[in-house]
This record gives sequence, structure tokens and C-alpha cells, in this order.
Amino acid sequence: MTWYLTSGPEGDLIVSSRIRLARNLKDYPFGARLTPEQGTELLERIRGACRASGDDYLDVHLEDLSPQEQLSLVERRLISPELLEQPNPVGLLLGRDESIAIMLGEEDHIRIQSMRAGLDLVPAWEAADAVARIIESRLPIAWSERYGFLTACPTNVGTGLRASVMMHLPALTRLGQIEALSRNLSKLGFTVRGYHGEHSRTQGCLVQISNQLTLGIGERDLLSDLGQIVEQMLQLERRAREQAFGSDDIRTADRVQRAIGILGHARLITSEEALDLLSDLRLGVELGLAPGFSAAQINSLMIQIEPGTLQKSAGRPLEAPERDCRRADILRNAIAAGRSAAAT
Amino acid sequence: MTWYLTSGPEGDLIVSSRIRLARNLKDYPFGARLTPEQGTELLERIRGACRASGDDYLDVHLEDLSPQEQLSLVERRLISPELLEQPNPVGLLLGRDESIAIMLGEEDHIRIQSMRAGLDLVPAWEAADAVARIIESRLPIAWSERYGFLTACPTNVGTGLRASVMMHLPALTRLGQIEALSRNLSKLGFTVRGYHGEHSRTQGCLVQISNQLTLGIGERDLLSDLGQIVEQMLQLERRAREQAFGSDDIRTADRVQRAIGILGHARLITSEEALDLLSDLRLGVELGLAPGFSAAQINSLMIQIEPGTLQKSAGRPLEAPERDCRRADILRNAIAAGRSAAAT
Repeated sequence: MTWYLTSGPEGDLIVSSRIRLARNLKDYPFGARLTPEQGTELLERIRGACRASGDDYLDVHLEDLSPQEQLSLVERRLISPELLEQPNPVGLLLGRDESIAIMLGEEDHIRIQSMRAGLDLVPAWEAADAVARIIESRLPIAWSERYGFLTACPTNVGTGLRASVMMHLPALTRLGQIEALSRNLSKLGFTVRGYHGEHSRTQGCLVQISNQLTLGIGERDLLSDLGQIVEQMLQLERRAREQAFGSDDIRTADRVQRAIGILGHARLITSEEALDLLSDLRLGVELGLAPGFSAAQINSLMIQIEPGTLQKSAGRPLEAPERDCRRADILRNAIAAGRSAAAT
Repeated sequence: MTWYLTSGPEGDLIVSSRIRLARNLKDYPFGARLTPEQGTELLERIRGACRASGDDYLDVHLEDLSPQEQLSLVERRLISPELLEQPNPVGLLLGRDESIAIMLGEEDHIRIQSMRAGLDLVPAWEAADAVARIIESRLPIAWSERYGFLTACPTNVGTGLRASVMMHLPALTRLGQIEALSRNLSKLGFTVRGYHGEHSRTQGCLVQISNQLTLGIGERDLLSDLGQIVEQMLQLERRAREQAFGSDDIRTADRVQRAIGILGHARLITSEEALDLLSDLRLGVELGLAPGFSAAQINSLMIQIEPGTLQKSAGRPLEAPERDCRRADILRNAIAAGRSAAAT
């Protein structure tokens, strides 16, 4: 099943694990120095290699999609925003359950992405690695004995691996400890970002942690290090909860119930407010204070209420007030369903 | 029925009308200059006059009440906070439906109060006046041919009448027009105050307007002037609504529904927040956007959630967090009842 419709290991605090492998073909220049003709040829060769693997990919023609459908792919984390900004031809091969997405012609010729719900780094990496091996066996890959895989940006040289984990850290966020944690983790070679990536503020108490190093450390060691850091952050979060929300359960219940009340009644809601309220609802799920609701349902709602996905499901472009209205409708229906599930 | 369990004329925008008549006995000094012995004697004479009238009064012994029960009387506007602070003996005679309350030994020897739901000034005054006439016929009242009734404070000399109307003005409040209105009305001899009286900020968009003049104008003329001003303010409020809430109905529906959502789910709530949310709910009632709810119900809730009345109904003193919790319980139950009434 699509990752964002499920919940995985440690799924109460961890939304998803994501692996990205960068690969390039030997005989072509990187990125902007590629001519359009070379780009087209390159895409065909990679598509051919993937098709020949016997794996079942959906060959998405991005140029045929509406801007809303394109944006929805970004929101579902199937493509990067940068893929849509490339001057040369680009492509997307999508595994049927959306757990594998192969971007063609982004910064690197090939970027294989694998996503899983919860904390599930090694299986996610194994799935991406299996795809990479098939491509590597069929196409001449830019690789050096000394450095490993060569990439457009030197920060990816070596394994070409970026692993990231999206966590829900309401207590650490509330206590204002994310920034200090972020500074410490940076010294260890890990980056902390918000829900919407590089420059985003922490929205909905969601924090993404990923590796900076791709050189001088093997994939399994790196994943093990990242996994350990994530486990430590979970411990910090769990310990911070009493301090953040008080030992007094009623304050937390109040917070969770108010979120349910507003999500279940609002007629207009921005995605910022919705993410913050879904964070409170998720806290309720984690603490057993929100019967009828699940982390998987919240994962799915987080995607559904994003502007592109909203417009895609409406089948037409929507102005901001219309989106706020439709977003409120989706959330209201979801809350009503959760409440009636809890009642039965 | 008790005024705050009902709704009266213009009850969608007007909470209540209140009349207060000040009277003093001729042969006793005013206020602080009264000795305790004189005070006791005075109270007995007034009690005797009222009892002999054949009207059915509850003789409330304030000194036997707990601080919470005393506070609850203030919250139900049956006594003034000042009555509890008098150095001399005080008393309270209460009509059985709480529409008439006679304070004994406050600033003036006798203060007769009459309350009605909605805009109902003349009947309220007639009820108070009937009580006053009985007392005047049985006791020697301080009165001068030139000034009329004499009172402890010169601002009440003449009719001894203070008439006030409590209005719900969410649009004018939101547009920040209350202060300017207040300045203009002051020039006409009327005072605008908040829900909690003299120095209170406008809470729950509730505004009280009352007369300053008690000299040189007959009671019926004064009530007619005040009634006209109130009608004008209602017109201003109704006209301001489109500007304040937009012609876009969904913004108002959102506001009303969010109030229902929060009131229906919160586990802790302060009286300030509750009053503001009840104001939004009242707006919903006025606009037909809150089926299952009524102005009378909101009037009653506004009293029930006040600290003293809360503690009185709990039967014991409650700390602030306990009050917030019990207040939330009362509101949650009321919203659940309203919602199920709307559903049937």
C-alpha cells in the first residue's frame, strides 16, 4: 500500500523513512551542461533499462500533467520541486505503490527514491539499492575506484545516498529545543529540517533528519548511525513530554480535544493551521487520547490537504479561499468518520 | 421564569434590561455615617414594610452564605459587589423569580432592582416602581420638592433611576467602533460599559448602556430616550455586520462552527475565552446558523460559568484550574444537548 496510507515501525512518532540514491551515466555531462538531444537520449536509455528489468513502472509524462497534478507529485514527495524547473527533458518512473520513484534528468541523471511509513530505513534502502543494481548492471555508471559514485554536486559523491526520517516531535518543539538539537546533530553530520524541506519553519511539529556525509562511510553503517540518532531523539521527545504538556493529563486532553473540535467544525482552514492541529491530533493518537483516529489516517490527511493534491482531486485550479473551504470539508469528514468509528 | 433562563423582545441582540431605583429613609444618615444600631433598625423597618405589602420575598441573610454563594448573587446581578463591602448590616429581599431584588444598606438605604430578558425597559421599570410605591406609602422617604428623591451620591438625586440595557454587538466590537460610540453617547448623557461593569473591557462583545442623568427628566421620557438609542445601536450593529463578517457567509459560518467545536470539545476553559466563544455562538443564533441553540440558553450559560455560580453549584470552593475544568464540562454538555436537539 502507498506509504502515506499506512503506519510503520514506531509509527506513533515517526511518519516516514526516505532513501534517495543518486546515479549518473558515464558518457554524458552532468546537469546544465547536457544538451536537450543528449537529455532525450539519456532518458530513453534509462527507461529502457528499467523496463527491461521486468519491474512494473508507471512512465509518468510530467509535461502532460496540469500544474496542480505536478504539485501533487511534489506534495506526495514523489518528485522534487527542482525536477519541474529543469531546462532539459525530465522523466518519472513510478512504482505501482508509489514506494519507488525514479526521477530522470534532475540534478543527477538518475535519482532513485524509496519511501516507507515509520522508521524503516534498511528495507527502504534495500528496495532502492535493488533498483540501482539493476540499472548499474545494464548501463555504464559514472563511478570512480577512489570516490565511488560520481554525482553532479560533490556533496553526493560516494554512496550517492541521502537517508531521511520524518519525526513528530511536539514536546521538543514546544520546549524550543529543536534548534539546539539541530546544531548538535549538524556537528555529527546530520541535518534537521522542517516538514516542507530546507528552509521551512517547523510546521505541525514535524522534523526531518538526514545525513550530510556520503563519502567514507558505508550505506549500512550510515543507516545504523541515523537509526540510532532517531531512537535517541524519540527518547528525548518521550522524556520531554511531561515537561511540555504537564503531568496533568487534562491539559493534554484539552489540547487534543480542541484540535478535534476545530478540525471537526471549521468551514475554512489554512494548511498551516491544519498541520498544527493534525499535530495535536497525532499527539492524541500517540497517547491513546483519540480513539477512532490513527497515525496512518493523519499521514494521509497531511497529503490530501496540500494545495496541489487538493486541486488535483477537485479536478481544477482553486483559489486560496476555495482551497481553505475544501480543506476544511476534507478534515471535517475525516473527523466525523473517526468519531463515529470511536463510538461503535 | 428567571430572566436569564429566557429571552425577551429583540432577544437576539439584547440580553437584558435592568432598572434600579434608589430610595432612602428620611430620618437616618446616609451610608458610612449610619451607626450599626441605626443600620439594624433601618433594615428591620424596611423588611417590615415589604413583608406587610403581601409580596412574597425571600429574606436572604447574606452573612450566612459562603463566599461562593455571595459571589454567585453578584454574577446573577442580584446584588452589587459593593453590598458585600459595607461596614454596616446589609440585607437582600429577593422576588421568587429573581426579577425583583431589593438591596438594603448599600450606598443607599434601599435599592430596588428589576431585571427582564431582552429590551423590556418600561415593564421592568413599572415592576420596580410598584415596589417603590409600596415602600414609599409605608415609610418616610427622603424627598425634596425641588430635587425629588435624595440619595447618598448626588449623581442619583432626582428619580434615583438607573436604567441599563445589555447588548450583544459583535460587528461593532470587531470594527472597533464601540469606543467612538461610547464617547458620543457620553455627550448625550449615557454611559457605555463592558459585561463586568464600570472598568471592564468589552468581553464577549457585550456592551451595557445606561443613563447618567437622574435629574430634570421624567422616568418615562428617560426610558423612551434610552430605548431609542438602543434601537439605533441595533441598526448600526445590523448594518455593520456585512462589513465585519463579510458578505461571504462562509466566514461567519466558520466563526460560529469553530466556537461550537471548541466549546463542545475543550477540557479546560477560562471564563474570558468562554464568553468570547459564547458571543460567536450567539451570533450564530442571531443569524440562524446555530440550530439547536437559543439566546436564552446562552444567557443561562453565561451565568452558570461565572466563578461564584460554578463554585456554588459544586457546593465547595474550587481553585482556578478546577473551575476551568468544570466550566468546560458545563459547556460541553450544553453543546452536546444543542447538537442533539438540532439533529432531531
